[in-house]
Amino acid sequence: MHCYAITHQFGIENLVLEERASPKPKSNDIKVRMLAASLNYRDMQVLSGLRNVSLPLIPLSDACAEVIEVGENTSRFKVGDRVMPVFINGWISGRQPMDDEMPTLGGPLDGTLCEEACWHEENAVLVPAHLTDVEAASLPCAAVSAWNALFVATHTGPGDAVLIQGTGGVSLFALQFAKMAGARVAIISSHDEKLEKAKVLGADVTVNYKQYPEWGSIVRDQAGPVDTVVEVGGSRTLEQSLICLRNAGHVSIVGFLSGTEPKFDLGELSRKSVRVQGIRVGNRDSFEAMCRAVSIGGIKPVIESVGTFEDAKSTLVAFRDGNHFGKVCITF
Amino acid sequence: MHCYAITHQFGIENLVLEERASPKPKSNDIKVRMLAASLNYRDMQVLSGLRNVSLPLIPLSDACAEVIEVGENTSRFKVGDRVMPVFINGWISGRQPMDDEMPTLGGPLDGTLCEEACWHEENAVLVPAHLTDVEAASLPCAAVSAWNALFVATHTGPGDAVLIQGTGGVSLFALQFAKMAGARVAIISSHDEKLEKAKVLGADVTVNYKQYPEWGSIVRDQAGPVDTVVEVGGSRTLEQSLICLRNAGHVSIVGFLSGTEPKFDLGELSRKSVRVQGIRVGNRDSFEAMCRAVSIGGIKPVIESVGTFEDAKSTLVAFRDGNHFGKVCITF
Amino acid sequence: MHCYAITHQFGIENLVLEERASPKPKSNDIKVRMLAASLNYRDMQVLSGLRNVSLPLIPLSDACAEVIEVGENTSRFKVGDRVMPVFINGWISGRQPMDDEMPTLGGPLDGTLCEEACWHEENAVLVPAHLTDVEAASLPCAAVSAWNALFVATHTGPGDAVLIQGTGGVSLFALQFAKMAGARVAIISSHDEKLEKAKVLGADVTVNYKQYPEWGSIVRDQAGPVDTVVEVGGSRTLEQSLICLRNAGHVSIVGFLSGTEPKFDLGELSRKSVRVQGIRVGNRDSFEAMCRAVSIGGIKPVIESVGTFEDAKSTLVAFRDGNHFGKVCITF
Amino acid sequence: MHCYAITHQFGIENLVLEERASPKPKSNDIKVRMLAASLNYRDMQVLSGLRNVSLPLIPLSDACAEVIEVGENTSRFKVGDRVMPVFINGWISGRQPMDDEMPTLGGPLDGTLCEEACWHEENAVLVPAHLTDVEAASLPCAAVSAWNALFVATHTGPGDAVLIQGTGGVSLFALQFAKMAGARVAIISSHDEKLEKAKVLGADVTVNYKQYPEWGSIVRDQAGPVDTVVEVGGSRTLEQSLICLRNAGHVSIVGFLSGTEPKFDLGELSRKSVRVQGIRVGNRDSFEAMCRAVSIGGIKPVIESVGTFEDAKSTLVAFRDGNHFGKVCITF
Repeated sequence: MHCYAITHQFGIENLVLEERASPKPKSNDIKVRMLAASLNYRDMQVLSGLRNVSLPLIPLSDACAEVIEVGENTSRFKVGDRVMPVFINGWISGRQPMDDEMPTLGGPLDGTLCEEACWHEENAVLVPAHLTDVEAASLPCAAVSAWNALFVATHTGPGDAVLIQGTGGVSLFALQFAKMAGARVAIISSHDEKLEKAKVLGADVTVNYKQYPEWGSIVRDQAGPVDTVVEVGGSRTLEQSLICLRNAGHVSIVGFLSGTEPKFDLGELSRKSVRVQGIRVGNRDSFEAMCRAVSIGGIKPVIESVGTFEDAKSTLVAFRDGNHFGKVCITF
Repeated sequence: MHCYAITHQFGIENLVLEERASPKPKSNDIKVRMLAASLNYRDMQVLSGLRNVSLPLIPLSDACAEVIEVGENTSRFKVGDRVMPVFINGWISGRQPMDDEMPTLGGPLDGTLCEEACWHEENAVLVPAHLTDVEAASLPCAAVSAWNALFVATHTGPGDAVLIQGTGGVSLFALQFAKMAGARVAIISSHDEKLEKAKVLGADVTVNYKQYPEWGSIVRDQAGPVDTVVEVGGSRTLEQSLICLRNAGHVSIVGFLSGTEPKFDLGELSRKSVRVQGIRVGNRDSFEAMCRAVSIGGIKPVIESVGTFEDAKSTLVAFRDGNHFGKVCITF
Repeated sequence: MHCYAITHQFGIENLVLEERASPKPKSNDIKVRMLAASLNYRDMQVLSGLRNVSLPLIPLSDACAEVIEVGENTSRFKVGDRVMPVFINGWISGRQPMDDEMPTLGGPLDGTLCEEACWHEENAVLVPAHLTDVEAASLPCAAVSAWNALFVATHTGPGDAVLIQGTGGVSLFALQFAKMAGARVAIISSHDEKLEKAKVLGADVTVNYKQYPEWGSIVRDQAGPVDTVVEVGGSRTLEQSLICLRNAGHVSIVGFLSGTEPKFDLGELSRKSVRVQGIRVGNRDSFEAMCRAVSIGGIKPVIESVGTFEDAKSTLVAFRDGNHFGKVCITF
Repeated sequence: MHCYAITHQFGIENLVLEERASPKPKSNDIKVRMLAASLNYRDMQVLSGLRNVSLPLIPLSDACAEVIEVGENTSRFKVGDRVMPVFINGWISGRQPMDDEMPTLGGPLDGTLCEEACWHEENAVLVPAHLTDVEAASLPCAAVSAWNALFVATHTGPGDAVLIQGTGGVSLFALQFAKMAGARVAIISSHDEKLEKAKVLGADVTVNYKQYPEWGSIVRDQAGPVDTVVEVGGSRTLEQSLICLRNAGHVSIVGFLSGTEPKFDLGELSRKSVRVQGIRVGNRDSFEAMCRAVSIGGIKPVIESVGTFEDAKSTLVAFRDGNHFGKVCITF
């Protein structure tokens, strides 16, 4: 089977296409054939050497795959099932375990940019039937993070006002999920044409944050005091988020780079009784609950573009340099 | 009746002792005679003009008072009862109301540095019987804040590890409450003799943060991964707090100055699934629940010193310049 | 102004149409002119003497009314506003107060079957603009109960499976709210034509419980293990509800008659870690949150029939003897 | 190694002492040597054939054991560690899994009345160092159930009033845990001498329910409205429990026999907004959190009596027929 690996030096350009022996499943494993993968900003950090991982490493953590063999002690899947991997291996239920380091796909564990892999059956989830391979491959990190930001860290429901930032994978899933939950959604972006597309997906209020750097009060005026912010924007957006937030409101912090220093007024947290919750993707229970919602709501992930396994490096470069509306994927 | 007021110019030295007419209770009011008051850091900000309040203003928000008259439509109290005021008027139950501005004692509302006052009966709470006037006067802001930080914002219980910072009013109440709840408590201070006193109050782990600026890992080693931090320390302590905190741990932010910029790594919030909750004192339900606990636990607030109404200005100056172990109070 | 009152003897037939002096608002009151009222099963119990209330009493607790005068100390409403009363007077926020007895409209307090009334401004809520008077009058008890059953007692959201029982007011609001929240809804009724109407409102699974007395397993098969049951059915439905419920599932108990003995297996509660929560309508915060949802979702209450103030007695009799699909209302 | 098993016929008298081959650990297993076991009422049901289990079966589910061998893929324990088994195998964290049937020790899985066993390492927990073997053996079912009843199903804390029923294992652990959490505890029993012993353990209010069958109002008068009831009493106690309970209070239902029909007024659940939560022992996270509390609080389980492995049958008979104050144990 073929895979891409960083062997000695970080950087997308240093990815090496290798042929390796087909892996053998242990008794609790399923063996899978990759059908599609998707990219996340974290993959860029790993590939750039900004995450503390040892080499060699097969990158990427999102995928849709077909089960082609099952270990003797498995019971969750059968050959032919389409599955997706759980990003944080072993986190099945409840809150994040106390142990400091958790094994995550795409570093430190080998990831999904390979034709075959073996996964412990507990670390995989069935694909909702109505999704294509590419759509399913977009779920494991971005959609689970958005789900937790809205429904585990807080309880988004009918009538709530939700603020979404930008149009990357997490944000568009958050938009779709919040609408499905009956919320009123405001979204900010620096591109008017992306805001137009977001309206088609259901956004109720749209603000161009380049045009209106003080967008906090505009969002508050148009959407009402915000119940929940899905904060993905970086160190400087929190200040405006706190302006549009209601008293006793909630901020979910998703996917921040280590090393990001926030710029906001700590006194505002107390004055408004704000809660800020860091989100680290999520557990398998959340993944499966989200899949039920995706099925029942007939939700279709927004795919920006699809490349091929052969052209993986150029797809990675395009993702790194681009400015997206939805998920960037790779087929095998 | 006499009162101190800031009339034209901020600053403790500009407080004016005035004689005013005895107030008349409206139909829902109780009229009280002040027995004792206590000081909070917020009072210093108000007196310095750092809070947006209009003059003239009677400062201070904590008190123990005797009911001397009851309005015709009241039912909660009778003449002779000892009561304490609710800091945020009208916040009885549930989460902080959506309205942005709430009326708080000691600015914008007239406060407790006066011999008599009228309070809506809904904004007062009965004093636990075993407390002296001075002890009761120490509860309304500091103790309610500590209570919310531990039992409303999160659920501190047996076996939890709790980190307390410093030895001011909020911190010592948090220490006493956390011990009553069966928790293991670590405390940091810059004075060894205060750490010794904290041990007498039940602290299990003590660290001098001047001696050990990297106290986060020491606390973690000695107390175990911390479940809850009562963060009162300022912009630079959060970084160490996040080091000692467990995954999925909780930080309650109490009493920060507006204008304080935090110094910490936003990425750590996500990586460890940390929750940060701003605390704005608390509602009357919390105040009354806390009083039940204070009664049942026989808890005695730690009083640092007691001045008189006549010497109020020098007590305020001493509080502003001092470095406390517990509450500073004034008797009438 | 005219009103209906029970003066000496219980029973709908003993309602007396009286003329009384127009009430005068106290300083915190608003004075309202009734536009519409709606009926609840509780009103039947009050009118039959099954509730412990003293006479004379103006019955009914639901209404939509126009503000025609405001007391000098009010600020929440202006003349001309359309408002609805809060059923449990004084319960603004948080959980049900500890005091055993709470003042409720339509007994022990005078209710809404009158042309004019004065309400403390804290006990009223603004009507969502898109609702007719009759639709608004249907909300205060049934819709708030349904809201609490789904979103306060538990957190119904996308992908959840919800079981609704019957087609009365609470049940149809629960159906509409659960659909707005992205849930999958199963409903049981003894009438196929009502099940057909429920499908039009969005019900995903329908079962005729007369035809299938063992409906628990049918619901489970067709809707999946149920996350939340809105239990209004009486003593014998709980047993089947527990069969369709998932482990760690939730049952909200709404509007049961005092004196109803349940028939179910207590051991099942433990075996499946079931939670059963009694619902007593709800507080004003819930009412207002629900109104936001009703506005944003453009929800229109289901009205079964509308009578007039003049014919109130025959409308009450028809309601008592009938078998409804939605709310029965009265216009003034 | 020796074990007791029910082979063909239920009944304590039909237990057979057998010699079996020493079990071999699989790669994820630890092999243990039993040091002590303890008895639960559930064991009596299993032995009587009231639970649906297949034979042959080694009964009992509680134990303290020494690790004598570790599988090659284990990492949680080392040889020499003292461990306790997790009653519901595989339930590590979060709420009870959706799957209807879970594997529990002592039926359907072989239990602890044997000299050696192999357990998946994920299904074991380290013993708090200060406990004897017998004390540790008393924890897995009774103490974890009590923990969940007080701290997972609800959040018992300082100042709460808690009602405990009887003096069996669950109840005495609940008493000790509630006192450690700062609560006020009322206990009912039919024996005055047991109530005296409960006082020594910290009970604040004691009522002999034989003497006062209407104990609900007595508890309410003496302990205040109760926040949490740990309901173990059977079908008829719920009625009195609801009388002493506060509005919005909580009832944890622990260890009821299947087939128990409750006798109470469903209308009271709604009127008082009561929550009733079924407790099925608990997950491993709860077990470990409880062990931290037991360690920090220096809690010593109450042991009623200790028999030997040789005399296991007479100990089982004595337990079945007896009326206990604390746990009955067996040493090996």
